[in-house]
Amino acid sequence: MLDLLIQNCDALVIANGRHEVQTAVDIHINQDTIQAIEPHKPDAPAAKETIKAAGQLAIPGLINTHAHAPMVLFRGLAEDVSILDWFNTYIWPLESNLNEEDVYWGMQLALLEMIEAGVTCVADHYFFMEQAAQAITEAGTRAALGWAVFGSGGQAALDTAAAFTADYQGAADGRITTWMAPHAPYTCDDDFLRAAARIAAGLNVGIHIHAAEEMGQTEASLAKRGITPIQVLEETGILERPTLIAHGCGLLPQDIELLARANQVGIAHAPKTYLKLGMGLTPVAPLREAGIPIGLATDGAGSNNTLDILESMRLLALTQKHEARNPEVMPLSTVLDITFNGSAAVLGMADNLGRLQPGCLADIVLLDLNGSHHQPRHSLLASLVYNSRAGDVQTVVVNGRPLMHNRQHRTLDKTEIIRQVQKNMGRLAQRIPSKRIQVYNP
Amino acid sequence: MLDLLIQNCDALVIANGRHEVQTAVDIHINQDTIQAIEPHKPDAPAAKETIKAAGQLAIPGLINTHAHAPMVLFRGLAEDVSILDWFNTYIWPLESNLNEEDVYWGMQLALLEMIEAGVTCVADHYFFMEQAAQAITEAGTRAALGWAVFGSGGQAALDTAAAFTADYQGAADGRITTWMAPHAPYTCDDDFLRAAARIAAGLNVGIHIHAAEEMGQTEASLAKRGITPIQVLEETGILERPTLIAHGCGLLPQDIELLARANQVGIAHAPKTYLKLGMGLTPVAPLREAGIPIGLATDGAGSNNTLDILESMRLLALTQKHEARNPEVMPLSTVLDITFNGSAAVLGMADNLGRLQPGCLADIVLLDLNGSHHQPRHSLLASLVYNSRAGDVQTVVVNGRPLMHNRQHRTLDKTEIIRQVQKNMGRLAQRIPSKRIQVYNP
Repeated sequence: MLDLLIQNCDALVIANGRHEVQTAVDIHINQDTIQAIEPHKPDAPAAKETIKAAGQLAIPGLINTHAHAPMVLFRGLAEDVSILDWFNTYIWPLESNLNEEDVYWGMQLALLEMIEAGVTCVADHYFFMEQAAQAITEAGTRAALGWAVFGSGGQAALDTAAAFTADYQGAADGRITTWMAPHAPYTCDDDFLRAAARIAAGLNVGIHIHAAEEMGQTEASLAKRGITPIQVLEETGILERPTLIAHGCGLLPQDIELLARANQVGIAHAPKTYLKLGMGLTPVAPLREAGIPIGLATDGAGSNNTLDILESMRLLALTQKHEARNPEVMPLSTVLDITFNGSAAVLGMADNLGRLQPGCLADIVLLDLNGSHHQPRHSLLASLVYNSRAGDVQTVVVNGRPLMHNRQHRTLDKTEIIRQVQKNMGRLAQRIPSKRIQVYNP
Repeated sequence: MLDLLIQNCDALVIANGRHEVQTAVDIHINQDTIQAIEPHKPDAPAAKETIKAAGQLAIPGLINTHAHAPMVLFRGLAEDVSILDWFNTYIWPLESNLNEEDVYWGMQLALLEMIEAGVTCVADHYFFMEQAAQAITEAGTRAALGWAVFGSGGQAALDTAAAFTADYQGAADGRITTWMAPHAPYTCDDDFLRAAARIAAGLNVGIHIHAAEEMGQTEASLAKRGITPIQVLEETGILERPTLIAHGCGLLPQDIELLARANQVGIAHAPKTYLKLGMGLTPVAPLREAGIPIGLATDGAGSNNTLDILESMRLLALTQKHEARNPEVMPLSTVLDITFNGSAAVLGMADNLGRLQPGCLADIVLLDLNGSHHQPRHSLLASLVYNSRAGDVQTVVVNGRPLMHNRQHRTLDKTEIIRQVQKNMGRLAQRIPSKRIQVYNP
């Protein structure tokens, strides 16, 4: 008896190293794992639950490699402002309003949005992460969580983060993994970064950090101390751990050489945020040429406004063609490789995530690509990249368990979550510039 | 007795020259016109139809200022190829397959997609336009139609286009207006452009034309004849007529000066196509400074893949901030001004379209901005620009008539349209490079 059978769908699989659509298949799932993907048979094996999916496209669950998910609480409050004002006048004062309960409900709201958009896994970097972990546990999704710490927090902050990292590694039936998450080289001094790296080594975990977010930070680092933010990561031992770097729009060629020699590095790419904040773009092509994995991300909704990886995927394709002034770059095959394989590799999970294949974790999204905006269906791959919308997501399975089916949530109480978030809107929107969690001065 | 009452919605209105949301209003509609927008009263006047819209946001119907709508038939068939190949190897061979019936069903499919995305008016530039007009008539939307002609078609093509332009001006109860639509300076010689301008003058209509689509075309024109494509439009008398120019990514500063002095010019801006084909971007800021209206567009689905003006709006904001590397440019107020007022002005309809205001045409879209991806609703304007999706569109009213209500079409038969389009997919996808409607060689 199977635990779950997805019946008669099309499936985005990899054949000869490239994504293609295999039509009319059954996906057999036992416990948390894909057991088989085989041509549809009317007399399928018995299953505890069967999802009929004729005409729908199964894709691997989308992975968000860098977010501050509970920042949905501040969505729309910092528009059309410089990066300096974004941090100092808006977001960091706003974040001083946060308490544990806010993070719990903010994370739930973010998970509602992400599940509805087919995002099954998020690498999240925020505060009060025990509450975020609780929300993940209840929602049923997958997450790589890091408790964000600033150098100003000193040893106490490191202790809190270390305790969380140790306690929650493998939590929620293995759906939660943890990282150390020092905020950035411009908010953590070298000793603090070294201490974070030592803790990560002791716990055998990776490090999730912002670095070289935009070229101004790189220039400031060079002016102040003669080395780039990436060189700071190397000198402080961060790069000896598996490292997830957001966002790298300020990477120089020598940084890419350095990253290529590092232990295990991945870059989270959140193009909507970069466009909106005028940050430039991650040098995607040189990073790929150097063999460094790139994954898709949304950053927080304070800058990105949405948590929609289908939108990030489309913007990856469009912006790379634009920057190169060449429509032949970033073809569909590369876009899909980054979206699925790249994102899984950035999380260090390329072996069992990001692919529909027997033995991989059963994180599966069913899309209905039959709407007017997909017709006629000459190319499902083009439709997936350029036409698909969060609203096309019908069913979301994580670890073998359907969390949303036919757009009905099974784990989260949408009405209650929105009610809880709305009742605190006024308090959360207050800003006292002197009351902020940090000062941005890279 | 009102013809239509939209009850207790919020409404995007203009106050002191800027868009703002007026909450809890009733919109009174008689025949094709907005009669009043006033604070909601439970004892509203009687109406033939009442739409209850509590919590929904009414916006002016979205306007697509440049499309080749029936090109949805070729969606996804020309991916990741150079502009030269896009024209010569893909689109122009594909378009040689078209017959009248294809355009009829292709236009219907495009109208399905546009209605579902809140697009109520399209300036369309294509072939067999009597069939396109028939589809518009049945769908109930608004359109400014031009029969595209190439210089190679000679006088016969001009005669066909002129007859259509004369016959369909004001058709479908005034919902259809017409333009002359010579294809572009690079496909029409000067005598042909002069003849088109004379016909337009005789019929008292405007001209809808491609020009300076990307900088390569401008450079080619300068190399071949010493003047820019815009100067060609001036020399041939095109600019003496109201002129709608797509796409202008190859405009030089002197072109903008020239356009600012012209009679009535508007620019259609289709950012998704420009990114995807690596064309650069229309110089939006200098055009706005010169007082030249800019409207939003999708171009055809052969390049843009979708016909979604909400997506064009979001990309306008994101790309302009990116190009300027400045998040303060293209603030929400300017994005909304271009989306609504700019697009109406580009069609020469700024007096009665693009605004929710008594006396204006009743083209109204109701959006549900209550989904998870909009919560909490700190800023409805930011949510409209950065978070809204076609799936948020609930109800679409054109000329006072609801065409879609609660996402149910009232005028178009979705199942039949998709069936008709699908049955011809194989024939439409055939390509014989020698059999093409034109050769691209600007």
